[in-house]
Amino acid sequence: MTAPIDFALQCPIPISDYPQVLLAHGGGGRLTQMLIERMFAPTFANPALGMLHDGAILTVNGGRLAFSTDTYVISPRFFPGGDIGSLAVHGTVNDLAMCGAQPLALSVGMILEEGLAMAELWQVVRSLQAAAQAVGVPVVTGDTKVVDRGKGDGLYINTAGLGLVPAGVSISPQRAQPGDVVLISGSIAEHGIAIMSVREGLEFETAILSDSAPLHDLVAAMLAAGGEGVHVLRDPTRGGVASVVNEIAQQAQVGIRLVEKDIPVREDVAGACEILGFDPLYVANEGKCLAIVAPEAAEVVLAAMRAHPRGQGAAVIGHVVADHPGRVFLRSRVGGLRVVDMLSGEQLPRIC
Amino acid sequence: MTAPIDFALQCPIPISDYPQVLLAHGGGGRLTQMLIERMFAPTFANPALGMLHDGAILTVNGGRLAFSTDTYVISPRFFPGGDIGSLAVHGTVNDLAMCGAQPLALSVGMILEEGLAMAELWQVVRSLQAAAQAVGVPVVTGDTKVVDRGKGDGLYINTAGLGLVPAGVSISPQRAQPGDVVLISGSIAEHGIAIMSVREGLEFETAILSDSAPLHDLVAAMLAAGGEGVHVLRDPTRGGVASVVNEIAQQAQVGIRLVEKDIPVREDVAGACEILGFDPLYVANEGKCLAIVAPEAAEVVLAAMRAHPRGQGAAVIGHVVADHPGRVFLRSRVGGLRVVDMLSGEQLPRIC
Repeated sequence: MTAPIDFALQCPIPISDYPQVLLAHGGGGRLTQMLIERMFAPTFANPALGMLHDGAILTVNGGRLAFSTDTYVISPRFFPGGDIGSLAVHGTVNDLAMCGAQPLALSVGMILEEGLAMAELWQVVRSLQAAAQAVGVPVVTGDTKVVDRGKGDGLYINTAGLGLVPAGVSISPQRAQPGDVVLISGSIAEHGIAIMSVREGLEFETAILSDSAPLHDLVAAMLAAGGEGVHVLRDPTRGGVASVVNEIAQQAQVGIRLVEKDIPVREDVAGACEILGFDPLYVANEGKCLAIVAPEAAEVVLAAMRAHPRGQGAAVIGHVVADHPGRVFLRSRVGGLRVVDMLSGEQLPRIC
Repeated sequence: MTAPIDFALQCPIPISDYPQVLLAHGGGGRLTQMLIERMFAPTFANPALGMLHDGAILTVNGGRLAFSTDTYVISPRFFPGGDIGSLAVHGTVNDLAMCGAQPLALSVGMILEEGLAMAELWQVVRSLQAAAQAVGVPVVTGDTKVVDRGKGDGLYINTAGLGLVPAGVSISPQRAQPGDVVLISGSIAEHGIAIMSVREGLEFETAILSDSAPLHDLVAAMLAAGGEGVHVLRDPTRGGVASVVNEIAQQAQVGIRLVEKDIPVREDVAGACEILGFDPLYVANEGKCLAIVAPEAAEVVLAAMRAHPRGQGAAVIGHVVADHPGRVFLRSRVGGLRVVDMLSGEQLPRIC
């Protein structure tokens, strides 16, 4: 049985332009945003979802819980600096952290393809558990499905996470306001380039490793230093820094200005980006935090980041402005201002 | 990069017997149990997971939360009585209900295959939302990934759920004890047969519909009637009633005796089972609740079930006994006693 035809007429995505799902609908850029804003958000409309955050905040028994989910379909499953198991922990822990929450528990749902090597499943399961243990968050519930050969790609993992938001913490994209400072916790584009190097068979003098890492601890240090002065937290994964700052600018209806020379990019990563034809601003990170903080809190939050092992390369990369609400501009190295758009199309499919 | 060879040596699943993942590892029977008991449970060991329940119970801010996850890979996606969208709500709501919890919120993680018709995605999303709304549980967070053509099967959905366990409720497989009564909320095997009829192109005089339905309300009525006399709740999905009672018998180290003539099976479903060569005890249900209750609570719980629209066909189908701990026997129609084993092998792949 297939979908009755009349559903096509009511579909909020223009069927004439997009009769089928494209890879770019999962790329974290413009088409992903269209799917979320036109189809998912209006359909599932409720106050918690309306925030369009990395996770939802629920008030339960007088406390605030963060609840988040992410599915991992990365290819290849093993890459320099990590694998799908550790990534599935770090990614969801980071989604909770970007709500200002400390992680409490994870669920794991696996889709295995018939024929997956049992030894490989074992390696992924061990890596997932090692990562969960390092974070100090238990995997408390799980589910495993097997699909027939040719209907998967070895192994897909969904993790959902529960976290506790401490009192006094209030993180939301809507809190970005003119005058705020934009911070990044370190050099960007390493995860995406590590993955693409493997896919393209590129070799560099030094291996480029994914930055996949849990950020809950760094965030706790930032919140301890900056308190309510920390307005927005986001991890720039799919779609990179460019997509995240665009989303914030649109949701808060503010302008954002970035300064290219201040955005940390390692030299080898910049070189690889050039070879591969990527702009590092659009390349995925899996262990970096972008923060928007009140001007009076910027110095102490930056100091707290730099004092933390995962934030040593932290830097101020821009400011929130009242001009051009909803849009992002970049002061380039040569001095001009250029628009930084959402990622359009599929830059890096299956990067997480 | 692939898994280093030495992991194979330590793999807790015997690699010589199972070098690769088989469809039966996801079938809900013996091989699924082996994967859970030998690989997942020891690796992720923690008190909440140790219960091997449909979900985990966490104490947060002085209250008890249930947390559960399930992935839906059913084929076909649209079937008589439901579709993958409504099933993804009912299945996870029911996992929460089987912890004695009332659902609070759902997450939705989707894996779309490049090329999926946009109109079909829309139909599934609408069905998912309609089911969530009927239950009264919001979808508060989500994630969408797209995989390349040939690496999926249109659409897979993971839902995770959060629920609140009311005070005084204590549901756990370990609470099954000799003397307890085994109840089922209605006639069995309808979901599995509905799916297999479509797959095999069978037609019956009357269409056999999936029983896919949310059970939180029925469970609330049962708990209101039976209180702490309700010891165990399970929804017999993959692997059917037979697998669920075997799991309970093993976890509580009790014997269970079922009476074949008392187990409700609709005539057309029994006929279809015969044609297809299935034993209804092993066929999946998606809207039935199996309960194990104290003898003194059995009558009121049964009455509460029968008074509820989803439990009108409720029946006593057996008892918990002190004999043969860990094993299940069935008194057959002709009077003999036969062993009811776990499902071994893959009876019905991709049934949920």
